[in-house]
Amino acid sequence: MNSAAESFVDTDLLAAGVAARRAAAQLRETSRETKDAALHAMAAAIRVHATHILQANAEDIAAAKTQNISGSMLDRLVLDGSRIEAMAAGVEAIAELADPVGRELARWTRPNGLDIARVATPIGVIGIIYESRPNVTADAGALCLKSGNAVILRGGSDAARSSAAIHAALVAGLRETQLPEAAIQLIATTDRAAVGAMLKGLDGAIDLIIPRGGKNLVARICEEARVPVLAHLEGICHVYVHAKADLAMARAIVLNAKMRRTGVCGAAETLLIDRAILESHGMAILRDLQNAGCEIRGDENVCAGLAAVKPATDDDWRTEYLDAIIAVKTVDGVEDAVRHIDTFGSHHTEAIVTEDAAAAAQFLESLDSAIVMWNASTQFADGGEFGMGAEIGIGTGKLHARGPVGVEQLTTFKYIVRGNGQTRP
Amino acid sequence: MNSAAESFVDTDLLAAGVAARRAAAQLRETSRETKDAALHAMAAAIRVHATHILQANAEDIAAAKTQNISGSMLDRLVLDGSRIEAMAAGVEAIAELADPVGRELARWTRPNGLDIARVATPIGVIGIIYESRPNVTADAGALCLKSGNAVILRGGSDAARSSAAIHAALVAGLRETQLPEAAIQLIATTDRAAVGAMLKGLDGAIDLIIPRGGKNLVARICEEARVPVLAHLEGICHVYVHAKADLAMARAIVLNAKMRRTGVCGAAETLLIDRAILESHGMAILRDLQNAGCEIRGDENVCAGLAAVKPATDDDWRTEYLDAIIAVKTVDGVEDAVRHIDTFGSHHTEAIVTEDAAAAAQFLESLDSAIVMWNASTQFADGGEFGMGAEIGIGTGKLHARGPVGVEQLTTFKYIVRGNGQTRP
Repeated sequence: MNSAAESFVDTDLLAAGVAARRAAAQLRETSRETKDAALHAMAAAIRVHATHILQANAEDIAAAKTQNISGSMLDRLVLDGSRIEAMAAGVEAIAELADPVGRELARWTRPNGLDIARVATPIGVIGIIYESRPNVTADAGALCLKSGNAVILRGGSDAARSSAAIHAALVAGLRETQLPEAAIQLIATTDRAAVGAMLKGLDGAIDLIIPRGGKNLVARICEEARVPVLAHLEGICHVYVHAKADLAMARAIVLNAKMRRTGVCGAAETLLIDRAILESHGMAILRDLQNAGCEIRGDENVCAGLAAVKPATDDDWRTEYLDAIIAVKTVDGVEDAVRHIDTFGSHHTEAIVTEDAAAAAQFLESLDSAIVMWNASTQFADGGEFGMGAEIGIGTGKLHARGPVGVEQLTTFKYIVRGNGQTRP
Repeated sequence: MNSAAESFVDTDLLAAGVAARRAAAQLRETSRETKDAALHAMAAAIRVHATHILQANAEDIAAAKTQNISGSMLDRLVLDGSRIEAMAAGVEAIAELADPVGRELARWTRPNGLDIARVATPIGVIGIIYESRPNVTADAGALCLKSGNAVILRGGSDAARSSAAIHAALVAGLRETQLPEAAIQLIATTDRAAVGAMLKGLDGAIDLIIPRGGKNLVARICEEARVPVLAHLEGICHVYVHAKADLAMARAIVLNAKMRRTGVCGAAETLLIDRAILESHGMAILRDLQNAGCEIRGDENVCAGLAAVKPATDDDWRTEYLDAIIAVKTVDGVEDAVRHIDTFGSHHTEAIVTEDAAAAAQFLESLDSAIVMWNASTQFADGGEFGMGAEIGIGTGKLHARGPVGVEQLTTFKYIVRGNGQTRP
């Protein structure tokens, strides 16, 4: 590890936790103006430090190549001028968002005159554990600062030098605006015990853990964490083409949901088609997918109707391919589709394509997924597409936040009660 | 255990979890009318079963007396006609609440025409672990049903027969309205491993655990649970009498906050008084408390100014007495008061008494407690007093819900996205 990386890490984890709590107390009362000034200073510092960041990244890449990492891993790791500019612009875009802290979420007056307001406040200290994408360092640091939270970052070892160089730019921005440097801390990847300690909460210092990475990382974190975790393990997203679907719309939505980008969590993994329209609609939809280079794994009806289809097994219904592969099943109506999704889905995002409003309503109401859609592509499952600005991930758990997690979802609330001397009878 | 109790328990915990999930899927789509009809049927059945419930309760009391339980424990356990009527009326009051499910929490349209709604949905399956109050069986069962959740109840062994008899009445109400009996299940107290198994989530069946009981129970549950917990460990609530407080108001609020009921979590435990008004205001406030039978443990200034005050130690600042005892400390202004509360408090409820709006604003903004109050008694920290109807407890954690937990807080949400064929560019 080079000296630049070393100088921005903290090996004393409990001290990092204490410093983060102290920084969080200060951030709780920091004005929007100061937070946004820091974000702009951070973006400027990312641009000023670009050469240094690229140099650190080149070292990471050289080290990664000696370890024969996969092409997709390497692509996630690589930075260039345009990716660095996108990172800086992303931090500036977060500064432009409305301040999520201090929003009055509800307010009412009781018959005894007590005035009760529910007001958004920062959560406190957030721990973010991520893999090889170094840009997460900037995104996560900026989102947490905007929402008034201190953050403890723990990136992947592959990107250690890149993340440290980006982190240095963020700290420069904090320093310039007199915010505590401990507001955004980066934990050394050389500290092997760090992830385990973070998952235990660093002695009460961490309020929430957010993992960013593959299924193995998320599964480990959900299993071991003793503090709340906001995450989704998998996005086994379904598109259901109902008997009353418009053919042209169904073709466009399925193709987009599966093939626009296959590696995102909102990509469709399973297609359900009503048996009644397998011939009239299904075959055209499936040929579109094949023409776009998508492998099809189908149930017996699909295999019987189309060439070059592999038979699907139960494992296929449970698989998030994140690749140009789709599992296809024929179903008999909305209830059957809902039953399949309940059994095999991951409660992320599901879409129905239909012109029948009653069928759509039944689908939207029956399913217990974070996002349910009618006549739209599952690839819209994204904080930016929802108009929430940058997101730090998507949650599929039941508590606190489901769906895209942006700055508003990084806040909690408190009640402010104003009286004029009321006592309780 | 008598046969009545036996017939309403389920010793096969995993089967209970599976049945609860199935019931939850049905409850998710159950109309308000049906849920309310079940609640009214449950209330009627509680009244019809009153003799049976009182007989079961008499057996619990007889058994408890052989074990020399404390008077306050016994008081919590005892039922009589009026307590049973209150229980039935409480269930009817829950039926009268607005349906928390299906509320549109937010809705907006994107430039591409996508219509996005955030809609409240039930959480799923809630596990409630409680101690000797048998009425929790009815309250918790009714609140969970109203919010569309299935519930697995595990009461204390002292009240096993009473809880089973109450549970039988709830099940009769479910049966009468054709709702699944597994919507409200009671786990046998003879099954010693049940609490541990519930805290592990019964193989993914339980979404949330809510403990109702003393600090030892809650601490154990927070420590051992592997599923989310909504709870407060302690209510170390503070009243801060600021230098600009109105004397009459301060006397009324402090006396009420401490002495109205000393055993509730919103009772004041520590009084902070500005040094500048210790003579002019403090002494009158403290004499009121002494006259009401409250023991005072003070810092050196308080001990010097008033007779019959015990010196307070640091332990007193950290103690939830739940009794007619108060710790009293002199402070120098809002910042000093906030620092003390940050150091020793439990983030439950704190109040400032002052005529100075700027001082109040500083106090309300700086503190990171679930409830902060200005010129009102901390005893208002209660779902009913907040106008939220019955509550199942108060949360002091940062995620999902803080403050009173009523039917709205027992819901989560999903996004419903309506389009007309949109695909993502």
